[in-house]
Amino acid sequence: MSQPRLVEVRQNVLKQNDLLARSLRRRFQDAGVYVVSLVSSPGAGKTTLLEKTLTSLRENGSRVAALVGDLATENDAARLARSQVPVRQITTGTVCHLDAEMVERALDGWSFSDLDILFIENVGNLVCPSSYDLGEDLRLVLLSVTEGEDKPLKYPTIFNTADIAVLTKMDLATAVEFDLASARGNVQSVRPGMPLFEVSAKTGEGLDRLLAMLQSRIAVTQAVGAEL
Amino acid sequence: MSQPRLVEVRQNVLKQNDLLARSLRRRFQDAGVYVVSLVSSPGAGKTTLLEKTLTSLRENGSRVAALVGDLATENDAARLARSQVPVRQITTGTVCHLDAEMVERALDGWSFSDLDILFIENVGNLVCPSSYDLGEDLRLVLLSVTEGEDKPLKYPTIFNTADIAVLTKMDLATAVEFDLASARGNVQSVRPGMPLFEVSAKTGEGLDRLLAMLQSRIAVTQAVGAEL
Repeated sequence: MSQPRLVEVRQNVLKQNDLLARSLRRRFQDAGVYVVSLVSSPGAGKTTLLEKTLTSLRENGSRVAALVGDLATENDAARLARSQVPVRQITTGTVCHLDAEMVERALDGWSFSDLDILFIENVGNLVCPSSYDLGEDLRLVLLSVTEGEDKPLKYPTIFNTADIAVLTKMDLATAVEFDLASARGNVQSVRPGMPLFEVSAKTGEGLDRLLAMLQSRIAVTQAVGAEL
Repeated sequence: MSQPRLVEVRQNVLKQNDLLARSLRRRFQDAGVYVVSLVSSPGAGKTTLLEKTLTSLRENGSRVAALVGDLATENDAARLARSQVPVRQITTGTVCHLDAEMVERALDGWSFSDLDILFIENVGNLVCPSSYDLGEDLRLVLLSVTEGEDKPLKYPTIFNTADIAVLTKMDLATAVEFDLASARGNVQSVRPGMPLFEVSAKTGEGLDRLLAMLQSRIAVTQAVGAEL
């Protein structure tokens, strides 16, 4: 297997992605746009949580938009559009993650000055997205209770490249005999000190705390932006 | 981005994998070993289903073994060992799929003549494993009801490179308001005629049918092997 050459070429791709992500991050910061990305397994509930989050932030007066990645279909963009904020779908074909170039292309023509916060929902994957910086300020890794408690141990890199963990579908915790203490311990053992939010988009449990965290971050970004 | 060069190098890697997988498949066939691989999202229930399947097949007199892939931890090998069949863990580091070389290495020292059926549980991922032939006879793609009905539409390649779909965690279908007709339709629209098994490893629902299918396939393989 020609692994060494593959690794070398991949490192070049990653380096170019990092450069593009850095320039995107500067553009976002200059415009005072706070950018949050979401990564998780397929079906962990990114789109449902995001639809609720977009709606709440919009109702609270924030100017919000979203990009959403999938290999195929525009399903998620259609679902997110119900929140009445601007949404664009990125379809990646066979690529298992978004990259900074896809994000830049999808933003073409959007005026950053009309935005306070941009969400980027990555392709459902607990491996590939970890290596690609998208220029975001905050990366959330979602884990649903139905996936089991040990995912942080099995996918340490994605937890180490994210800032905050969100445990989703808490309404199903009893039905799947989820061991919350064990899950919390596993997150902390992989990434000591990682903040963990426990939510159910279905019942609304825990969403207020998550929204309050996001709103305080937006406020800080805008205060810093105003000083520049 | 240097994508064309990356694609070219990747094609060489895939071609080498195909050659190795072909030689593995020949070795399995010569020894009369039927090989089944499992792919799915993280947490779709591969290990739980496999533990039940290994136990049942062993109790029914089949000589069974399993390889199990994860980025990190030996957790799944430990869980599968409860079925009292030989199990080996493959840890891939940061690689999002198994390849034929990893399978060959993991089999080192095992006598194929002691085996009727070998299971290979891939890394939890709905994208990367689709391109890598592991020399298996049958590839099962698992989808849990908690992931939602639209996954076949979003990840068409993995459904198109698998032979059989297995809908898992059917015991949770009501709790998550799963639309079974829609899921069945989505599987058929991506891959017309694909067999679909609906199971719950927890309640045992549907497992008999899945086991009967596997046992009939083993019988055919061994009958063909005896003729060679």
